[in-house]
Amino acid sequence: MQQGRTAPPSCSTSDCFTLNRLAAAAGGSEAARQLQKQEVSSHSLLTEPPRMSSVLIFYLSYLLSLALGLACVVCVCVWNSQWRCGFAWDGSALEFNWHPVLMVTGLVVLYGFGAVVYRIPLTWGQNKLPWKLLHAALMLLSLILAIVGLCAVFDFHNAFKGPNLYSLHSWIGIAAVALFAMQWVVGFAGFLLPCSPPTLRKLLKPVHVWLGGSILLLTVAACISGINEKLFFVLKANISGAQAYSSLPPEAVLANVLGALIVAFGLVVLKILLNSEWQRPDSRPENMTYAPLLQEENE
Amino acid sequence: MQQGRTAPPSCSTSDCFTLNRLAAAAGGSEAARQLQKQEVSSHSLLTEPPRMSSVLIFYLSYLLSLALGLACVVCVCVWNSQWRCGFAWDGSALEFNWHPVLMVTGLVVLYGFGAVVYRIPLTWGQNKLPWKLLHAALMLLSLILAIVGLCAVFDFHNAFKGPNLYSLHSWIGIAAVALFAMQWVVGFAGFLLPCSPPTLRKLLKPVHVWLGGSILLLTVAACISGINEKLFFVLKANISGAQAYSSLPPEAVLANVLGALIVAFGLVVLKILLNSEWQRPDSRPENMTYAPLLQEENE
Repeated sequence: MQQGRTAPPSCSTSDCFTLNRLAAAAGGSEAARQLQKQEVSSHSLLTEPPRMSSVLIFYLSYLLSLALGLACVVCVCVWNSQWRCGFAWDGSALEFNWHPVLMVTGLVVLYGFGAVVYRIPLTWGQNKLPWKLLHAALMLLSLILAIVGLCAVFDFHNAFKGPNLYSLHSWIGIAAVALFAMQWVVGFAGFLLPCSPPTLRKLLKPVHVWLGGSILLLTVAACISGINEKLFFVLKANISGAQAYSSLPPEAVLANVLGALIVAFGLVVLKILLNSEWQRPDSRPENMTYAPLLQEENE
Repeated sequence: MQQGRTAPPSCSTSDCFTLNRLAAAAGGSEAARQLQKQEVSSHSLLTEPPRMSSVLIFYLSYLLSLALGLACVVCVCVWNSQWRCGFAWDGSALEFNWHPVLMVTGLVVLYGFGAVVYRIPLTWGQNKLPWKLLHAALMLLSLILAIVGLCAVFDFHNAFKGPNLYSLHSWIGIAAVALFAMQWVVGFAGFLLPCSPPTLRKLLKPVHVWLGGSILLLTVAACISGINEKLFFVLKANISGAQAYSSLPPEAVLANVLGALIVAFGLVVLKILLNSEWQRPDSRPENMTYAPLLQEENE
């Protein structure tokens, strides 16, 4: 994101205007035509794949995100099945157990996997539409899991006439799901419906990308506060020998590690999303297949 | 962060090489010299200020971050002085009250203000060193407040022989402060000590920027989980008529709003940090004063 002093990695479009204008003034129309041709050529260089080292670092980061995501799902499942007595759909605490599992699996891990789909360089040589559909499908699945996860906690509260949506955790969590639902609907209408005009897509895209990252930050904050809250609720010392959260029993360590893994996953996904070198080159028409440039143009 | 289809906003250095190489082959040494001259001129364009609309949006975002930061400080002070009975340094709950105030003021608000110092376009015309010193000073003040805030909570726990660092909130929070301390020391040694070589600075910079954003994400997650935890601890219905958190008394609403403001502040600061148009042009030597380019070069 920083520009080097000796070899600037990027330059503004005004550079091209200046080059053309000066060349036209100095060398006449032939020079201008030559430069215009070269400008088109240099424009096409925008579509070149990123450097090998950058690709390697991407795949290492991507593998790390997959491993962290998988570890999050395993941790949250083991926690709720082994220490919280498993699952049911009967308004009991066993129904509540679906809440952390579905939120972490859907709203964090699947969401993160769906968010970085376009960043995989191997997919850049292919038509974008199937990857758009995969992105939308993963996000829809993530949203459905999150909504079912919300139903689980509402059902659990309603079963004992408990209040809903009063804690800061629930405010942040519900804001994340509401923004996510809105983001999915607007994204579907704006980027997948054929009647959506390109100007609207162009306007929507930076908002979509920014809101996507913000939703991930909200879900990470909601998960951390939710795990913390749950552990204070359930880990209380009593006469039957149960250990308090403050004595850090194995369940507390596992759930704390889950929280740390969620934060690490969020940071790696945001890093992947925000690295401009890893963005799919959108200057190519969406329905055009990828044709590698000639080597001499890339050098 | 997206590249437009018709007017690419950036191009790689390989464009310049291609332009020079092709021009030299086509038009001989005079054309190449002319292009080299123009390349230097276009390189200098890297230092031009961003577009007016971008500057306007920056200042609106910056004012929003200032307003949100101020609102966070007011909320956390009012919460702890009016509802939590104020402050002391005696190992009591009144000493604990310094913890949220110092963490929010130091680790979130001052940290955020310090992080965006370089992004203010008005400062780009000036020597970078005073702004580096201001950045380092704000961050040091933020770190000191955070450490005093940690002392307050350790003192409070130790006064009643309570355990420290067991909750997920404390794990995330202590990780944020430890990373921040490391970041400050490495940043000071790498960017302020004259003996630090430029190659080291170049390597450090992206890591410094990335870690800076990650620390902010950690602090936001720590704050949300901390406020949530505190409200569950202190807002319990009892026979003296105190209201439970679940009935959302005014204190709960205020503290929840504080949490929402912290998230909003974090998102605005991260937006400012990550917008490449709002980054100080680092291609200028640090000790060089800013000289606006000629208008005809900018057009």
